[in-house]
Amino acid sequence: MRISLKEIADAVDGRLNGDPDMRIEGVSPFESAGPDQITMAGTPKFLKRISDTQAGAVIVPMKCEAAEKPLVRVKNPQVAFARVVELFHPRPVPEDFISPRAHIGDHFSAGEKVTVSHGVVIGDRVSVGDRVRLHPGVVIGDGVIIGSDVEIYPNVTIRDKCCIGSRVIIHAGAVIGSDGFGFAPDGERYHKIPHTGIVRIDDDVEIGALNAIDRATFGETRIQKGVKTDNLVHIAHNVTIGENTVLVAQVGISGSTTIGRHAILAGQAGVSGHLNIGNNVTIGPQAGVAKSIPDDSIMSGSPEMPHSRWLRVQTVVPRLPEMKKQIAELERRLKALEDK
Amino acid sequence: MRISLKEIADAVDGRLNGDPDMRIEGVSPFESAGPDQITMAGTPKFLKRISDTQAGAVIVPMKCEAAEKPLVRVKNPQVAFARVVELFHPRPVPEDFISPRAHIGDHFSAGEKVTVSHGVVIGDRVSVGDRVRLHPGVVIGDGVIIGSDVEIYPNVTIRDKCCIGSRVIIHAGAVIGSDGFGFAPDGERYHKIPHTGIVRIDDDVEIGALNAIDRATFGETRIQKGVKTDNLVHIAHNVTIGENTVLVAQVGISGSTTIGRHAILAGQAGVSGHLNIGNNVTIGPQAGVAKSIPDDSIMSGSPEMPHSRWLRVQTVVPRLPEMKKQIAELERRLKALEDK
Amino acid sequence: MRISLKEIADAVDGRLNGDPDMRIEGVSPFESAGPDQITMAGTPKFLKRISDTQAGAVIVPMKCEAAEKPLVRVKNPQVAFARVVELFHPRPVPEDFISPRAHIGDHFSAGEKVTVSHGVVIGDRVSVGDRVRLHPGVVIGDGVIIGSDVEIYPNVTIRDKCCIGSRVIIHAGAVIGSDGFGFAPDGERYHKIPHTGIVRIDDDVEIGALNAIDRATFGETRIQKGVKTDNLVHIAHNVTIGENTVLVAQVGISGSTTIGRHAILAGQAGVSGHLNIGNNVTIGPQAGVAKSIPDDSIMSGSPEMPHSRWLRVQTVVPRLPEMKKQIAELERRLKALEDK
Repeated sequence: MRISLKEIADAVDGRLNGDPDMRIEGVSPFESAGPDQITMAGTPKFLKRISDTQAGAVIVPMKCEAAEKPLVRVKNPQVAFARVVELFHPRPVPEDFISPRAHIGDHFSAGEKVTVSHGVVIGDRVSVGDRVRLHPGVVIGDGVIIGSDVEIYPNVTIRDKCCIGSRVIIHAGAVIGSDGFGFAPDGERYHKIPHTGIVRIDDDVEIGALNAIDRATFGETRIQKGVKTDNLVHIAHNVTIGENTVLVAQVGISGSTTIGRHAILAGQAGVSGHLNIGNNVTIGPQAGVAKSIPDDSIMSGSPEMPHSRWLRVQTVVPRLPEMKKQIAELERRLKALEDK
Repeated sequence: MRISLKEIADAVDGRLNGDPDMRIEGVSPFESAGPDQITMAGTPKFLKRISDTQAGAVIVPMKCEAAEKPLVRVKNPQVAFARVVELFHPRPVPEDFISPRAHIGDHFSAGEKVTVSHGVVIGDRVSVGDRVRLHPGVVIGDGVIIGSDVEIYPNVTIRDKCCIGSRVIIHAGAVIGSDGFGFAPDGERYHKIPHTGIVRIDDDVEIGALNAIDRATFGETRIQKGVKTDNLVHIAHNVTIGENTVLVAQVGISGSTTIGRHAILAGQAGVSGHLNIGNNVTIGPQAGVAKSIPDDSIMSGSPEMPHSRWLRVQTVVPRLPEMKKQIAELERRLKALEDK
Repeated sequence: MRISLKEIADAVDGRLNGDPDMRIEGVSPFESAGPDQITMAGTPKFLKRISDTQAGAVIVPMKCEAAEKPLVRVKNPQVAFARVVELFHPRPVPEDFISPRAHIGDHFSAGEKVTVSHGVVIGDRVSVGDRVRLHPGVVIGDGVIIGSDVEIYPNVTIRDKCCIGSRVIIHAGAVIGSDGFGFAPDGERYHKIPHTGIVRIDDDVEIGALNAIDRATFGETRIQKGVKTDNLVHIAHNVTIGENTVLVAQVGISGSTTIGRHAILAGQAGVSGHLNIGNNVTIGPQAGVAKSIPDDSIMSGSPEMPHSRWLRVQTVVPRLPEMKKQIAELERRLKALEDK
């Protein structure tokens, strides 16, 4: 594929320093880009080394005025770069295709250019919008509603009645709408509480591979607009994840907890049940959150504490054996003074 | 669906204060129940606020004698509530159905009302009891034996020779009987130890979505009666999980460890291999258990310590920087005294 | 199956003390082996108790000269034992079989004795070597290349263009080649960065059940020769795992990190992104590695510290409440002295 520098600049709302007719054949990272490729220098670290890259053109921040190379100057180089990668690696053109090896239940309603691949099983009363791609082995339960421009990768399970918005991506092996982990104990045995609610996933959400998102006991487990989850994330029943929040790999959120908008939970962090985690909260990796967290906090540790405190605590922890000795020594010296 | 209050009271062995012919149309949580619905007030917190709920009737503990509302008085409100939810949301009536899109191996033996859905693959010499539902995409290996009233959700894999009891539920994407992680190292490479054992899951077990339960090297990995596991749990080869024990999401149990009966392992906890965890043990979230634990213990932390001690330790940890300063200050003052 | 002791000794390059014609019918652990079976006593602990086992013959280290039982003396008893287990439990003979219930795309190239089981879906331009077994429900994307003697268990997804070496085992439900978790933030929303790279898995690798291994943004995520991963492991985009490294269950490796050869990461450990973990490094269970680690280190804790230090720290942590009291007491006594 060959795209002119002008077309690239136009696609990313960029200002072009250089030959608009220059043909670019691909996009590549700073270190490995060749003379036919475009790359990005988004941070001062890379801008300083801009003459090092072999790339034919470079996407840079608007404030970067000149260099020896053709530049595409943009407001947000990362976002522009993502867009250019997409230009060179367009998603497959959606097409109408229903495999004879798929099973489709009664009262199926589908928009245009819907692909139902081999081995897909769709229950009754399912509705999907336009340009939906269901990859092989996907299982969709009865009454599921799916928006438009949705991609569901192989072997995903979406259980009955769950609702999926538009422009949603669900990666392979994920499970949406499994029963919540709710039981009534009688002191000895655990009696299953039927889970009558659903999972609702809003627009522009991306769910990682092998996520497990449980349906609500009543009502809904809710993944709001723009949420991104990494692989192997667990989201329990009746949880709400706020808009544009990011859950990194192996995070676990316990039942009935609400996470605000634009939060970031780093890898392997866990949050207890029935908590409120505020907007714009950042939770460190492996943190164990046991209390509700106000907006705009940065927390780390297990149990959690303010990140700045945690940083200081972590410098002391490895020296605990020395501290213990020091205290014993103080004790000895104090005793000596007292005895005098 | 409409059920009379008397029918509800009878179903839960309850005593009825109120009109036995009152028609109830559904069940709902305390805050959201309407006048045609029944709810529960199981704890003093909710009992105090019983006049706040809009519910038409309330399930309460036996000792709650009177209220302005129709009451169903029961021994265990949680268990009764679970039963009433089930009354209003009965499981689908089992039916004889074998999809033409399923593959069934030789010598298949099945009881009555067995559902083998589309895309299911069943190996040779498999036996299943009555009222078993195999959802789409389930793969059952050769020689697997499954009891009655079992529900296996989509895309579950059960590998050869594993045994599943009755009234077992296995949620979507779970893997039962994968090879254990056992290798013989020669100092450089790792040589695979073939895993010739099985996984045996006893009656009344519920396995969460995307669990991985490995088969034994020899003998069996054993999940005993009434165990409940949440999502993304790992159970290694030759582990035994005792009766009515609960493993919360993302717990990991290493090889050859035995967990007693009626234990609770909270989310993201991990247990090392070859340990004995006693009966009625509670392990806190994210705990890392490195030693065997006697019966009736409550442990937290990584490595684990008694929970009561852990609670006290956790109040000190965030103040470590101040403790360090305090010690330096004591040192300085002591030095001053010594120098006098 | 019956195998003579001589055949066993020959298969493991062992020296035989005992009747070469003795017929052995199976292999079993030390405690449960019967008189027709062979077992192993690989460590001094078992060698001391060698007369306790009911086994008919015992695999022992070369230096073990005599016992009352027939012995097979070998250089590495563990490796020999693994080999003998395999002798008695040979893998199924590979056969040419393509299920009519599988879908195979255009330009499929396959070697000899390839099994494509029911419900398998193979994309276009896929190539597999000899003796490859694709179990039911496996989904292989376009352009995937697979070597010889590969076993891919049920419901595994391998997305387009990934490369799998020879003698690779991938356990059920694993996902190879899902998109990396890479987004360009604009301050509010996250813009998807298309992932144009692949996952390359080299020879002799074994991938555990329900692993998620993401494809690279550009280039490749690389799992080198002989790597073994346990269940529920997450490996992010652009990671390299070096030869013969072992990742225990629920480990998570963040993006662009490189792990050296012959490392061991214990269960639930996590490693941050863009780090270099050296060769022969051991990381303890639940460790959280936030910095690069030189070769031959043993690290534990979250954040990590040298294991020997961590061991000492862990003896102090539970006594922190007492240390705090002790400091307060020193303070009081010092004050008393000062006041004098």
